[in-house]
Amino acid sequence: MLAKAFIYSVFHLFTATIVLAAEAAQDGESSGHSSDAFGIGLISLVFLLVAAKLGAEIFERFGQPAVLGELLVGMFLSGLGLAGVAFIEGMKGSEGLHIAAEIGVILLLFEVGLESHLSELLEVGLSAMVAAVLGVVAPLGLGYGVSAYFLAGEPWYVHLFVGGTLAATSVGITARVLQDLKKIDTKEARIILGAAVVDDVLGLIILAVISGIIGSIAAGGGAAIGAGMILGIVLKSFAFLLGAIFIGRFLHINAVRAGTRFRVPGIPLVIAIGFCFTMSALAGLVGLAPIVGAFAAGLVLEPSDYEVYQKRGEMPIDSMIKPLATILTPIFFVMMGLQVDLRAFASVNVLAFAGVVTLAAIIGKQVCSLGVVEKGVNRLVVGVGMIPRGEVGLIFTGIGARLAVDGVPVFSSNTVSAMVVMVIITTVVTPPVLKSLLTRE
Amino acid sequence: MLAKAFIYSVFHLFTATIVLAAEAAQDGESSGHSSDAFGIGLISLVFLLVAAKLGAEIFERFGQPAVLGELLVGMFLSGLGLAGVAFIEGMKGSEGLHIAAEIGVILLLFEVGLESHLSELLEVGLSAMVAAVLGVVAPLGLGYGVSAYFLAGEPWYVHLFVGGTLAATSVGITARVLQDLKKIDTKEARIILGAAVVDDVLGLIILAVISGIIGSIAAGGGAAIGAGMILGIVLKSFAFLLGAIFIGRFLHINAVRAGTRFRVPGIPLVIAIGFCFTMSALAGLVGLAPIVGAFAAGLVLEPSDYEVYQKRGEMPIDSMIKPLATILTPIFFVMMGLQVDLRAFASVNVLAFAGVVTLAAIIGKQVCSLGVVEKGVNRLVVGVGMIPRGEVGLIFTGIGARLAVDGVPVFSSNTVSAMVVMVIITTVVTPPVLKSLLTRE
Repeated sequence: MLAKAFIYSVFHLFTATIVLAAEAAQDGESSGHSSDAFGIGLISLVFLLVAAKLGAEIFERFGQPAVLGELLVGMFLSGLGLAGVAFIEGMKGSEGLHIAAEIGVILLLFEVGLESHLSELLEVGLSAMVAAVLGVVAPLGLGYGVSAYFLAGEPWYVHLFVGGTLAATSVGITARVLQDLKKIDTKEARIILGAAVVDDVLGLIILAVISGIIGSIAAGGGAAIGAGMILGIVLKSFAFLLGAIFIGRFLHINAVRAGTRFRVPGIPLVIAIGFCFTMSALAGLVGLAPIVGAFAAGLVLEPSDYEVYQKRGEMPIDSMIKPLATILTPIFFVMMGLQVDLRAFASVNVLAFAGVVTLAAIIGKQVCSLGVVEKGVNRLVVGVGMIPRGEVGLIFTGIGARLAVDGVPVFSSNTVSAMVVMVIITTVVTPPVLKSLLTRE
Repeated sequence: MLAKAFIYSVFHLFTATIVLAAEAAQDGESSGHSSDAFGIGLISLVFLLVAAKLGAEIFERFGQPAVLGELLVGMFLSGLGLAGVAFIEGMKGSEGLHIAAEIGVILLLFEVGLESHLSELLEVGLSAMVAAVLGVVAPLGLGYGVSAYFLAGEPWYVHLFVGGTLAATSVGITARVLQDLKKIDTKEARIILGAAVVDDVLGLIILAVISGIIGSIAAGGGAAIGAGMILGIVLKSFAFLLGAIFIGRFLHINAVRAGTRFRVPGIPLVIAIGFCFTMSALAGLVGLAPIVGAFAAGLVLEPSDYEVYQKRGEMPIDSMIKPLATILTPIFFVMMGLQVDLRAFASVNVLAFAGVVTLAAIIGKQVCSLGVVEKGVNRLVVGVGMIPRGEVGLIFTGIGARLAVDGVPVFSSNTVSAMVVMVIITTVVTPPVLKSLLTRE
């Protein structure tokens, strides 16, 4: 208890000091050759990092996953921002912090990919594929049904969009829990990761198709949508994944070989990070989530490829990636919590609809476990691992709020709030359940 | 020769591919859940990193300092941008890349500070102090004289501003050369680093005073300036440096001790980076260059403070900082080259004035070596190490171009160009001369 009290008081002291300092800085005068915005950015980064570690530590002490602490600290800070702490409110929109967070989750999936092996992933390929398809179809149907019942007055494409929002898994949370518990190398983890990649591709297709239908309705052309467009999106996605694996592997091996002819230090890290970032950017350019590209890059790259550099005094490649991820990955999870608008929890109607949608989201993903063909796999782990909707759900929600037919947005502000609550609950509920399932074995 | 031809062809192939890919991406459609701007940012970062390594390698092969290669590759790319390559022209103004570069130079000075010891720096304190003062006064006077002769039609405060621009050293380049040659631990290096810190404080005071005088003239109030204002700036700067060393050391030791009570991994790196970034931000807030804060942070922090964490499986602190610096430091030097406007080299008049100003800048700093009281110190190394003006000179120039009296800017566009040329030459000339002086011994 003493230790906990100690952490709490450190946290309060720390919050108070930094916030005061930063607010003073914002009011303060500026002179000389530095931009104050940059200084405030640095302080914000340090603030979020320390907050993340304090949150992680508190949850670790309670036997909960560290990542949950990072998320909830972010939500706590979001509340402080709403309560009028301008320094924190300013962080929510900080471009630099968003970039840091985005690179943080890219590095996390890159690390997870490094710890995974392509051959082992292909072994569970069928299960992952079937699980992903079931895990997209079921929430889509359940979401449509729930929306049709609760929002009976809304047109049918709203229900379709609610269903679509429930479809896509955000694998970041699950990957982090599996990493923290050192369970990345299990069959369950491989099925989840494989299914999440397929799932992202399917989610993209659904989003493109639904947006296309709504666009067509808004333009007065009815619900017609070309089969060619759908086929184009599907082909582009598969081409990226196959290209990443085969062309990517070839290019990477050659880059490593060419790099050995260089004499300057730092070559292996530049190649590895260069490969990871390029694949992430390419994934983004074909319309997939950048983290899918990062995961594929990690999968293709084997730490043993870099052993030749260790003779010259370079560190092993995973030891060089780790410090980068240590600094940036927690920023992603705190920022995710910081984005949560706590006001969504204030309305009873919203909460009721949110509760039902959340149930649909959770039950819908449990169907994934039916897709597992292997024996000796804990099907519940697979189902639970697919639950978090995270940033993908938020992105769907954002698009739903922007798309409009005859000036009426597809998602009303109440629907948006309910979806945000669904994302929060599915994201926050998964780490403790997953941990208890994995450590009980 | 074969190896060089190989590097050249790799470089061309690489430039062509990435530029084509990025231009295609900019035209390309966007869909799904990623912002293309983020993807282009990632590609730009990778592009600059690979370009930096290629530049470094080429110069290394010619026996030149790697950092010079990074700078000149940046200038070469700047030329490509002027020639109409939109992808590169876009990088010049990229906020994300500027942040990465700024953090890169902060990490460099932090590493240099880590390798330095406060006690050894204080041993050469007198020399550093005297060298800094001489190295500020001499270029100020020479600059005034040269400007008064060549720009006879301009008012006296223009000459003062030219002199001021010649005063401040940019220690990044010299620190990097000393680090590459593993000479950070020499008396010469300590004098240069100490003098650079004092120099930055003096530069700040001069800038504040000259700007104050010009502001006062522009307001029609004559050249009056309060002694209180000057004193305030001086006190603020010294308070920061003393505070950094004494309060900073105390806070840091306590953070390290409190951190051992945490169970989550990554604590030492969070403390070290947190300390470095906080000190950099605070330096910026009192008006000093952020790198002065980073250097002070590294000076205060001893790698041995963190040994207690190694028993728990954490890596040594310097091995964790290194990968961060490996990725970000080269970005600073390429970006510095990329900022150079090559059109400044086009006018004969500008070049003539630039040549004389550059001579004044170089000769002015040689006076530094007179300040060295120690025996057995290579005075030429100290003088040469103080030559680069780098980003500090560019910032002075920028302010000179913005300040105006009766609508006429203090620095005409020709003066700006000449100053830019001076910065380029002093920055580019130093690494090879310093290297030959240091390796001849």
